Amino acid sequence: MADNYRLVLLRHGESAWNAKNLFTGWVDVDLTAQGEEEAIRGGRLLRDRGLLPDVLHTSVLRRAIRTSQLALNEIDRHWIPTSRTWRLNERHYGALQGKDKAQTLAEFGEEQFMLWRRSYDVPPPLLAEDDEYSQYHDPRYAALPIELRPRTECLADVVDRMLPYWYDALVPDLLAHRTVLVAAHGNSLRALVKHLDGVSDADIAALNIPTGIPLYYELDADLRPVTPGGEYLDPAAAAEAIEAVKNQGKK
Amino acid sequence: MADNYRLVLLRHGESAWNAKNLFTGWVDVDLTAQGEEEAIRGGRLLRDRGLLPDVLHTSVLRRAIRTSQLALNEIDRHWIPTSRTWRLNERHYGALQGKDKAQTLAEFGEEQFMLWRRSYDVPPPLLAEDDEYSQYHDPRYAALPIELRPRTECLADVVDRMLPYWYDALVPDLLAHRTVLVAAHGNSLRALVKHLDGVSDADIAALNIPTGIPLYYELDADLRPVTPGGEYLDPAAAAEAIEAVKNQGKK
Repeated sequence: MADNYRLVLLRHGESAWNAKNLFTGWVDVDLTAQGEEEAIRGGRLLRDRGLLPDVLHTSVLRRAIRTSQLALNEIDRHWIPTSRTWRLNERHYGALQGKDKAQTLAEFGEEQFMLWRRSYDVPPPLLAEDDEYSQYHDPRYAALPIELRPRTECLADVVDRMLPYWYDALVPDLLAHRTVLVAAHGNSLRALVKHLDGVSDADIAALNIPTGIPLYYELDADLRPVTPGGEYLDPAAAAEAIEAVKNQGKK
Repeated sequence: MADNYRLVLLRHGESAWNAKNLFTGWVDVDLTAQGEEEAIRGGRLLRDRGLLPDVLHTSVLRRAIRTSQLALNEIDRHWIPTSRTWRLNERHYGALQGKDKAQTLAEFGEEQFMLWRRSYDVPPPLLAEDDEYSQYHDPRYAALPIELRPRTECLADVVDRMLPYWYDALVPDLLAHRTVLVAAHGNSLRALVKHLDGVSDADIAALNIPTGIPLYYELDADLRPVTPGGEYLDPAAAAEAIEAVKNQGKK
């Protein structure tokens, strides 16, 4: 379908805190060497499939930005127009940011732990204003009044703050027939997939997105997925990685 | 002067073809390991001076893009808005692209060599349409009709194609009191400096800009340099590097 629209979602490669099994959220950690490799491999998967992005949208967090830079540099698309927005940031993990996942599980029990991790509308405890991971003095959020900066988020909150960017920035690029690459995070991408596929509040809990494997959505004239759930460019690796994500916090 | 404007020019670090002493122009070569180090050091010089860019403008060439990414990543400014334009590209070196500088000097003599390198209005011979370094099939220039894509340029041509971007993109960012970082190339930056400092067509020949050392311009209300020629953030290294550039092609 030459007239359909092309959207590619790419979750950043392994970060330093993924590797350490810590809740990250808005803390701006870098990729590991493995994460860098994943990003480059993600680029190659795009090229092999002939999906050369015309435009890039990322969060304002280093792990997504660097993933996109490494992937695009690998396939000679380093020069495409780039937009960055906090609306594609990872879910803000509130007071859990910087905490060990396994330790949090042990401390609060599996029920509470899974509520925080996968419920649609239960946010973690608020981040203290003077927490070392607070964004109160971070210049990248300077345009956002203090009272509008998240101190914790559930997935519903992420959907609410991501959707304005979908309508105002991503959809116009798609309608201009650009191949759009969104390099972002587990939960901002889950929020987008929830919207695209019309996943219910209950069912989104079970949906995990692996790192570094491009997820391709061909969208019809109404911007509905031609293939529900999209298509991972390396389906076998995606299936394996999704299993691994499910078991996070259980080690 | 709190109300003055802040502009920082950064020439990319050493590229693979700088190292090989080849004319590069629009050929999209990468940085060397030394070039990467220069970029990171450029970032540190900005931070040490308290010049944190609010917005980035680059060419569409990898060596400038990667220089900016490495410099900004080093100082936690990877998230700033970024624009890219062919109007900040290096001068198109026409049929000299890919040729050895010393060999070209030997073949054509010093007079012709210096005319091509440093005269204001003598372009090198036209690049053939089917040259291996032609941009005819390069998607990054797809919006530009074939007949408008340079096949060679003198510095006057670079001034002509750079100035629209100065007025339409850089000046508005400056007037919004953003600290503007321009990561670009020897000749596109010479074109900009010529405009800023009102350098004559004759005098611009003697002006060289070293790689990887930020050149800071504080601009007054009329966008005129407070300090003519600007200020290198590492003046000693700049002076040394400028000498080295002068001797290119003479080895």
